[in-house]
Amino acid sequence: MSKKIGKQTILLDSEISVLSYASVVGKKEGEGPLKNSFDSIYNDELLGEDSFEKAESKLQKLSVTAALQKSKLTEKNIDLIFAGDLLNQCIGSSFGLKDLEIPFVGMYGACSTMALSTIMAALAIESGAAEKTVSVTSSHFCSAERQFRFPLEYGGQRTPTSQWTVTGSGAIILSKENGSPKIKAVSIGKMIDLNVKDMNNMGAAMAPAAADTIYNFLLDTKTTAKDYDLILTGDLGVVGSELLNQIMIRENMPISNLHNDCGLMIYDLKSQDVHAGGSGCGCSAAVLCSEILTKMRIGKYKNILFCATGALMSPTSSLQGGSIPSIAHVVNFQA
Amino acid sequence: MSKKIGKQTILLDSEISVLSYASVVGKKEGEGPLKNSFDSIYNDELLGEDSFEKAESKLQKLSVTAALQKSKLTEKNIDLIFAGDLLNQCIGSSFGLKDLEIPFVGMYGACSTMALSTIMAALAIESGAAEKTVSVTSSHFCSAERQFRFPLEYGGQRTPTSQWTVTGSGAIILSKENGSPKIKAVSIGKMIDLNVKDMNNMGAAMAPAAADTIYNFLLDTKTTAKDYDLILTGDLGVVGSELLNQIMIRENMPISNLHNDCGLMIYDLKSQDVHAGGSGCGCSAAVLCSEILTKMRIGKYKNILFCATGALMSPTSSLQGGSIPSIAHVVNFQA
Repeated sequence: MSKKIGKQTILLDSEISVLSYASVVGKKEGEGPLKNSFDSIYNDELLGEDSFEKAESKLQKLSVTAALQKSKLTEKNIDLIFAGDLLNQCIGSSFGLKDLEIPFVGMYGACSTMALSTIMAALAIESGAAEKTVSVTSSHFCSAERQFRFPLEYGGQRTPTSQWTVTGSGAIILSKENGSPKIKAVSIGKMIDLNVKDMNNMGAAMAPAAADTIYNFLLDTKTTAKDYDLILTGDLGVVGSELLNQIMIRENMPISNLHNDCGLMIYDLKSQDVHAGGSGCGCSAAVLCSEILTKMRIGKYKNILFCATGALMSPTSSLQGGSIPSIAHVVNFQA
Repeated sequence: MSKKIGKQTILLDSEISVLSYASVVGKKEGEGPLKNSFDSIYNDELLGEDSFEKAESKLQKLSVTAALQKSKLTEKNIDLIFAGDLLNQCIGSSFGLKDLEIPFVGMYGACSTMALSTIMAALAIESGAAEKTVSVTSSHFCSAERQFRFPLEYGGQRTPTSQWTVTGSGAIILSKENGSPKIKAVSIGKMIDLNVKDMNNMGAAMAPAAADTIYNFLLDTKTTAKDYDLILTGDLGVVGSELLNQIMIRENMPISNLHNDCGLMIYDLKSQDVHAGGSGCGCSAAVLCSEILTKMRIGKYKNILFCATGALMSPTSSLQGGSIPSIAHVVNFQA
């Protein structure tokens, strides 16, 4: 049985571990600093499909299939699949995964979805409902631009604080078997809304949510930042990362030495013209399911916090003058 | 600990029960056959807000607040809230619930979301991660028409097979305390896609998914339809209900005597001009959290299957010629 401690943290009792993981990304991500960590890089942004949305669906199918193959499992071995994406009505997940015929749990947490899906998968295993689960998310630059901003053909000018939606997907297979790393504790965040309204500055909107969840996790577990090898947010980018670090200093819990952000890691910010960094459900998923979990397996990291952040607005809510409620969830992986 | 049996059914071990529930609906629903069962009826479709989307958010807040009040709880007593809706990026849930400050799990299963949220809440309690949870969903006729079909001002003609999106929300509080009814078993469905493409005939798209999940639930639990007082789908409407019954007869598991559908119950189909019946995340939630759970508490029903169904397409996928992958999840409530 899990156990809730403190305000919002859940200690997992079972040895729930990562049996397998895989990541697939697009061309731009494949030219970035993590290019050697991904399982596959697709230079064709359509992946042979006839729309960007279908291409995004294919990314999910490819990452799940790769994770299954690496663990010598098939879809028949999986009890539940937890998935989400940024597209309206989460069609990246439904069209990407429908042919797998795995009982399907649709999740929505914007760019926090990879942490949320992984947490809910771990709790499902902990409850006894499943032995093996898949958690998967995706995003695609072209489908996201069309849906949230402008069609690419418009050639819209991006603001300096805007982030670049990652074309990619990451998938994790969890089980109680002897995998690595293990999930020891999780925190499900509450929504934080400090009335940031700029859709082109998601980092600023999400930083307070990341700070709130990390702060509560450390407090609940009676640990400090120094107990971890890495506190990894996804995807605050340049602006949000700076704000997060300022908030944590103010709260007397500085994390800057140990902090990194998936949106800062996936691109070379100097040469790849992505402005404030990467973002999207697929960003934290692809970084986690490549560089990070691999470094845990080879012993480079022993104890990390993966804190994916999400901005829970829509273009409609923003056009109506709404703020950007944000959320962040923490998964504590230990080697 | 829960236990998976058969193909996709999970037997709950703990006595997870409904501590409280509440439903709020709009004017049309308040003029229908269930008008005396709802907690509140709002005749103003804007609920005092300045957009339909904000009105839908308010419905979620109102149903959660009512369910809390009925059980003399406050939001501080709730460990986790599971919520979803039909709006892009699920803003009905995020804007409706952000001020409650409860750790938040966003779900997406289209009109199946109430069953999915209730299942995941039950599993979270079963895992030990939470003691008390809220599950809530909503839909709103006006926000759904604008997003999925045409702006109301257009005055579009509805096809005979189309369903009327319910303006409403339902919320359930689950706990291990001595509430009623209890959740004994659940089935999480897999996506079924028989290549139905007509967005104005969701019933036809969803019926095979409902049949698949109900069929597997009965098989997995070694029960027959006769073991239940009611097999309640939501929301197949006239067309989908007829198709479900035909499929179940063909599979030698007739359910017609015991079957009803939330989309058929919430309106008077003869006088309320809703064509094939009601639909939307709020339909099955409002019917479950009024008429159905009340009849279980007073002993009218002792053992029911609640099978909410969802159509997992988006307007974009349909405009691109995509099919309508569908899903259904079962919750077995016992008094």
